[in-house]
Amino acid sequence: MERPLDALSKAKGKIITVALKNNSVVKGKLDAFDIHINLVLSDAEETNGEKNKHSQLFIRGDMVVHLSMTN
Amino acid sequence: MERPLDALSKAKGKIITVALKNNSVVKGKLDAFDIHINLVLSDAEETNGEKNKHSQLFIRGDMVVHLSMTN
Amino acid sequence: MERPLDALSKAKGKIITVALKNNSVVKGKLDAFDIHINLVLSDAEETNGEKNKHSQLFIRGDMVVHLSMTN
Amino acid sequence: MERPLDALSKAKGKIITVALKNNSVVKGKLDAFDIHINLVLSDAEETNGEKNKHSQLFIRGDMVVHLSMTN
Amino acid sequence: MERPLDALSKAKGKIITVALKNNSVVKGKLDAFDIHINLVLSDAEETNGEKNKHSQLFIRGDMVVHLSMTN
Amino acid sequence: MERPLDALSKAKGKIITVALKNNSVVKGKLDAFDIHINLVLSDAEETNGEKNKHSQLFIRGDMVVHLSMTN
Amino acid sequence: MERPLDALSKAKGKIITVALKNNSVVKGKLDAFDIHINLVLSDAEETNGEKNKHSQLFIRGDMVVHLSMTN
Repeated sequence: MERPLDALSKAKGKIITVALKNNSVVKGKLDAFDIHINLVLSDAEETNGEKNKHSQLFIRGDMVVHLSMTN
Repeated sequence: MERPLDALSKAKGKIITVALKNNSVVKGKLDAFDIHINLVLSDAEETNGEKNKHSQLFIRGDMVVHLSMTN
Repeated sequence: MERPLDALSKAKGKIITVALKNNSVVKGKLDAFDIHINLVLSDAEETNGEKNKHSQLFIRGDMVVHLSMTN
Repeated sequence: MERPLDALSKAKGKIITVALKNNSVVKGKLDAFDIHINLVLSDAEETNGEKNKHSQLFIRGDMVVHLSMTN
Repeated sequence: MERPLDALSKAKGKIITVALKNNSVVKGKLDAFDIHINLVLSDAEETNGEKNKHSQLFIRGDMVVHLSMTN
Repeated sequence: MERPLDALSKAKGKIITVALKNNSVVKGKLDAFDIHINLVLSDAEETNGEKNKHSQLFIRGDMVVHLSMTN
Repeated sequence: MERPLDALSKAKGKIITVALKNNSVVKGKLDAFDIHINLVLSDAEETNGEKNKHSQLFIRGDMVVHLSMTN
């Protein structure tokens, strides 16, 4: 792999788990990303004490701690 | 979808729910956005312990955690 | 509306309410703004526990949470 | 007024009161400013629990919350 | 060594330990990095009170405190 | 004075007192500065509960609250 | 000295002590630096309550408070 964003390109259309700086964890299908690590997830479930469902969720890139790819 | 901002383009004129870094949640109609994720919402209701109504609200992009689209 | 800053252009000369990251709320007439959301308000009243009056107040843009327009 | 920095231009040589992000308040004569809102004040008095005098004080712009102009 | 990123180039394909600003420590094989210090690690183990395994993990660069190379 | 950095130019070679965002105060001779307000002080004494001496100290600009010039 | 980075150039290959924003202190030989103050230290000892040794450590520049040069 050449660059970190290549890993995101390969994850498009797949289920990923995103840890946010507010300690939320969001799991969903990666629809889109950009160089700021702005993300769009669909069928997303957010866990932060309680659980919330989002049919489509835009996440601002500067909130991202890390993204875990699922095999 | 190519880029995350495409999701915002499609949400223009629709009701979205925005989570902010100060733990406020704002629900309203998306009138405008830009690449910084600066937003303008109309007929917005902000919830943060108490509820506040705003006929039109400009939100600075760096306060945004995520935006949830409504079907 | 095309861009979020258009909402600020239309608010020039009108009374707005600005929420700041230090939990202050400032209400006053919007005299000027720029792309950083630096603001100048006149006849401004700041509320943060106590109240303070400012004949003219320059607010650094990165302190802004949101601006509420008044009809 | 066209731009927020015009208010600072008009305040040069006058007494202003600057609120900082560390809750200090500095009052003094505005000698210079730039687009980052870096400031130089002379004959400045800083209040933050205790009071400190500074014959000339350079303030880094990213520390500024707001500046209040005095009539 | 000329530049700090040269140390990351030499670490590609090797096991490194990354300390994050949220006090997590992640150990894994460095697959990719960029100038923002965005990282991709494979076979990563994250320790933050509990332990989590990630087959592939993208870490946003602004979360990085430091990276320790292993001989 | 035209620009805030002019005050730093005039302070080169003189004793200044720098307040940092971690509440340290560093007093020493200003050897060098740049537009980021990165500083080099020599014969510096840092006070933060305890006192530390530094023969030469590089301070990252984003840590600076303000610099007080001494007559 | 003209610019602050000149002090880092002169410190290359020498032992320096770096204070980080997470209150760690790292002492080691400066192998490389760049304009972001990204650093590589070798034979580094990190102190933060406990002590950790790193044969080679990359430190992200935005974590740096200051660097103390040793005579």
